[in-house]
Amino acid sequence: MFSIRTDLAIEAHEMLTESTSDIQGVACDTSRHNNIAVTRVTVSTEEAAKALGKPVGRYITLEFNELNLADAEYHAYICKQLANELNGLLPKKEKQLILVVGLGNHNITPDALGPLVVSKVLVTRHLMHQPPFTAEKGIGPVSAIAPGVLGLTGMETAEIVQGISGTVKPDAVIVIDALAARNLNRLNTTIQLCDTGISPGAGVGNKRKELNQKTLGIPVIAVGVPTVIDAATLTADVMHAMTLSSGADEENERSKMLAALHHLLPEDISRCMVTPKDIDLTIETVSKIVAGGINLALHKGLTLEDVNAYTS
Amino acid sequence: MFSIRTDLAIEAHEMLTESTSDIQGVACDTSRHNNIAVTRVTVSTEEAAKALGKPVGRYITLEFNELNLADAEYHAYICKQLANELNGLLPKKEKQLILVVGLGNHNITPDALGPLVVSKVLVTRHLMHQPPFTAEKGIGPVSAIAPGVLGLTGMETAEIVQGISGTVKPDAVIVIDALAARNLNRLNTTIQLCDTGISPGAGVGNKRKELNQKTLGIPVIAVGVPTVIDAATLTADVMHAMTLSSGADEENERSKMLAALHHLLPEDISRCMVTPKDIDLTIETVSKIVAGGINLALHKGLTLEDVNAYTS
Amino acid sequence: MFSIRTDLAIEAHEMLTESTSDIQGVACDTSRHNNIAVTRVTVSTEEAAKALGKPVGRYITLEFNELNLADAEYHAYICKQLANELNGLLPKKEKQLILVVGLGNHNITPDALGPLVVSKVLVTRHLMHQPPFTAEKGIGPVSAIAPGVLGLTGMETAEIVQGISGTVKPDAVIVIDALAARNLNRLNTTIQLCDTGISPGAGVGNKRKELNQKTLGIPVIAVGVPTVIDAATLTADVMHAMTLSSGADEENERSKMLAALHHLLPEDISRCMVTPKDIDLTIETVSKIVAGGINLALHKGLTLEDVNAYTS
Amino acid sequence: MFSIRTDLAIEAHEMLTESTSDIQGVACDTSRHNNIAVTRVTVSTEEAAKALGKPVGRYITLEFNELNLADAEYHAYICKQLANELNGLLPKKEKQLILVVGLGNHNITPDALGPLVVSKVLVTRHLMHQPPFTAEKGIGPVSAIAPGVLGLTGMETAEIVQGISGTVKPDAVIVIDALAARNLNRLNTTIQLCDTGISPGAGVGNKRKELNQKTLGIPVIAVGVPTVIDAATLTADVMHAMTLSSGADEENERSKMLAALHHLLPEDISRCMVTPKDIDLTIETVSKIVAGGINLALHKGLTLEDVNAYTS
Repeated sequence: MFSIRTDLAIEAHEMLTESTSDIQGVACDTSRHNNIAVTRVTVSTEEAAKALGKPVGRYITLEFNELNLADAEYHAYICKQLANELNGLLPKKEKQLILVVGLGNHNITPDALGPLVVSKVLVTRHLMHQPPFTAEKGIGPVSAIAPGVLGLTGMETAEIVQGISGTVKPDAVIVIDALAARNLNRLNTTIQLCDTGISPGAGVGNKRKELNQKTLGIPVIAVGVPTVIDAATLTADVMHAMTLSSGADEENERSKMLAALHHLLPEDISRCMVTPKDIDLTIETVSKIVAGGINLALHKGLTLEDVNAYTS
Repeated sequence: MFSIRTDLAIEAHEMLTESTSDIQGVACDTSRHNNIAVTRVTVSTEEAAKALGKPVGRYITLEFNELNLADAEYHAYICKQLANELNGLLPKKEKQLILVVGLGNHNITPDALGPLVVSKVLVTRHLMHQPPFTAEKGIGPVSAIAPGVLGLTGMETAEIVQGISGTVKPDAVIVIDALAARNLNRLNTTIQLCDTGISPGAGVGNKRKELNQKTLGIPVIAVGVPTVIDAATLTADVMHAMTLSSGADEENERSKMLAALHHLLPEDISRCMVTPKDIDLTIETVSKIVAGGINLALHKGLTLEDVNAYTS
Repeated sequence: MFSIRTDLAIEAHEMLTESTSDIQGVACDTSRHNNIAVTRVTVSTEEAAKALGKPVGRYITLEFNELNLADAEYHAYICKQLANELNGLLPKKEKQLILVVGLGNHNITPDALGPLVVSKVLVTRHLMHQPPFTAEKGIGPVSAIAPGVLGLTGMETAEIVQGISGTVKPDAVIVIDALAARNLNRLNTTIQLCDTGISPGAGVGNKRKELNQKTLGIPVIAVGVPTVIDAATLTADVMHAMTLSSGADEENERSKMLAALHHLLPEDISRCMVTPKDIDLTIETVSKIVAGGINLALHKGLTLEDVNAYTS
Repeated sequence: MFSIRTDLAIEAHEMLTESTSDIQGVACDTSRHNNIAVTRVTVSTEEAAKALGKPVGRYITLEFNELNLADAEYHAYICKQLANELNGLLPKKEKQLILVVGLGNHNITPDALGPLVVSKVLVTRHLMHQPPFTAEKGIGPVSAIAPGVLGLTGMETAEIVQGISGTVKPDAVIVIDALAARNLNRLNTTIQLCDTGISPGAGVGNKRKELNQKTLGIPVIAVGVPTVIDAATLTADVMHAMTLSSGADEENERSKMLAALHHLLPEDISRCMVTPKDIDLTIETVSKIVAGGINLALHKGLTLEDVNAYTS
């Protein structure tokens, strides 16, 4: 019931190294410059994937300082780093068509990252033969959609994206999603990129079909930002810390605590999330940064000023 | 430049009968009860289709009084009539899956009909095995999506819907769209249903690929409400009335008038639309009625009170 | 740091009775019918107010079952009970002008209750001399505004409401606000009415000037629904339950736990909130119920069907 | 019925000079640089005000080219010109508090200018004692509100703004409003500033109480952008051009034409407006420019890059 959940490979790796020192098939490397830490976790075997709870693939995490709304220069720097990392994961084809998919529910503030980013992406596929949108100027063909969530459409995102891919035939898909972290400090200060697409259980709403190269036949790059912590994860961590500090047996404590908490914490605390009270401002700022990085990566001839002028 | 445009078959038929009395291949019949006029226009030959500018098929128009916000009973009556007509156009299969597609741009008030209706449709496909959503209770499987417009997605609606149909495999599609009328009196007081789907040139934004049984392989029922008049159509009608009343030669007058109007009316008046100043209220009311009709048609075991409780 | 916060008088009373059996100046009485529990807490002395952390006045709590979206009859019943209780708190004057104020930030889903309710209230002040809005029909004059939050306007809600009251001169004000509860089970299943207005520290965003009869000169009725729990409150309750169950000394445990949790829980957990993952649906449903109750209370000649037809 | 309406003093002046060459009490002067025309119309006598239909005062119009979304440099230039002109109209006091009021209905795209601008204004009044928002850095105290329209609040904007001014006590008010023009070419390519506030009959919705220095006691600067043409104005202009070009008598023609148009144009064409089909994009771009100009004028220590980083 109170299990710890994280969508971040970097946190899954941290948890694993807490309990064991010998992890085969996972490499982890961090570099740091200009107040951004870049961590690369590579999962190379199925055993490691199982231990970590993340599919085989590459996971890149950008960690930055809490965003000071006014520091335009720092924002621009993060955008450029994100663009670089994104280009490292995308195929190297010329004039390739990219489909950007914003997952999540625009009616729930911390889950609106995907739809917000899509609204700020410079969409050009339909304009590629009109000036000034020509490949000569370093503008690539881009499509984008925020398909909505299962509860609103009655359809899995995977079904919708597979369908659209069949007719629109992109060369690669970038999916944007709000994630759940374990660590409160990571909310809205971390961007995770990976080449493994979307797994069941990831994202704010956590039941979904997988969406990856295997199911889609083309590369699926996922870009996620943790905006919530599962309330059950927070509870579990508090309980764990209490038992650690008291030296008590955790399993034993857990059942006693559940009895004591019974009237306050119903069993369905797992249906709750923890999110900052100013999530409206942070989600807006973070979505600008993610969209900026995507725009720079897909339209190499443009500067950040250009894409800000083109998009809302 | 100032050509008259209407998305309504009933108006296209009126225009044709103004200029000729002998129209082969078009039948038109009107019945009236309880302050609703139901007109059925049937286009049966390609010649008639060409003359009318509407594909071969059935067009049903419900015309009602201007909607008094407070007349709940009249609203309910229109919903039920719409449900009846919709059921007449849909296949008769048991437990068939219907995909409702809301066309149009939710950022432009008179073009937001489709997205608004989708937000009020009772979506059930993902819930069909959970109580109380079981076929025994007369609830059918329904999916819905508002895919956005070409300018925002870089993709034609037809591409998106064809793609989704390929994976989700609905038995029929209902597309909702805001239309352009010729006659100001018809704005927000008319619902057109047809079995011919979406044609190029229809809707508020008027360039698009066709979306119909031929391109999709399953029935495509279109439900539209006129919410705008093309500004060019209004201008043409005023000019026409002026020349009629003055007995002058229209072609001759037209060029003189264009010269006189030159500084006020640029050639691109065709990029403007005419819409009521209270379009926010009327589009909300009309979308409730259209969604109500769809909900009653697709969930035959429910009353209007039920669907109002289920939906927002 | 991890103090327990609740905006509900019923919970403050529960907490007080946990630690002491002898509370002077507070009366608490619960009645139950048709799956609704109505609890009346009356705070009659300043000492009791201080002990409870709630101003002297009357607090009425309606507790209902989790809202089944489809149970239209139960919703209607709650609306009527709310209307009754609201009428008990409002002045008894004929044709009095009521100003409904929706507090909170419409950009943050669990804080959007006030703006959502305002959008569903039947506003009539400007129409009172037009049919069908006449006092004979039992429709009262109502104004409404959602003034936005300090961070967006640079102005305290109290400044805005005081200003408007000075020119519009309502006879009473109803303020709607999203609240913080202690108990997860109360989220979106409880409505609190009180005649004490808004206190500093209440609401989802918790710094604000008071807004009550003393500052405004007219009755200020507050209607609130808990939609969040402070993350610090949840943490404190888990810690408390752990120490209770382990028999340890709480103060001692607390500092040890804080050390153990240090990297996961920064000191500013107080800037986080806990809210249901489906808050978009529950806030929509609850806002319909609160608006329905207000509409029935202020427009006594109308039925719930009438107000649903009038409003969106 | 088909009278010509314009909220632009420059157009009212053009209309007047069409019919008479001798206008006392109105001065009009145009200068042009870098693709922006700046026209200053000064109305200095009550007779001139009556003839023009605009109160005594100063009206400044900036006319620019149609906005190419990608020309960031031109946008910045317009922002700076707007800031200059705005500073010319505002009082010269140090650290004065400005209240920005966004008129109009955010639910109607062409009427949403005011609310959109307010959402992009850098609001600082509540932060003036926190770094980095200190007067030393050239940041002034600013409040902002979009109070909603009479139909939604039951209150006149003038009542709300007068009330708030009474408690918040700004030194001046800037009101932002979407306007009606006569000339299609001016839509979204013209900004009008004036020191006469808001007059009855101006704006997209055209009944309202005046809001100016006389009623408020402090300077009221209005900033407006024409986003619509009254459908009746368009009709009247087409009729006028037709009769001009045919040499017919206008009054006589008018009644004949009305008969001819009877079934298409109901008498209430005056309840319709003409607006561009891509109004969603243009209103977003124009609101960015107006907000940029206001931010530069009120926060003299900031650059446009700074305010873009601070605001959404």
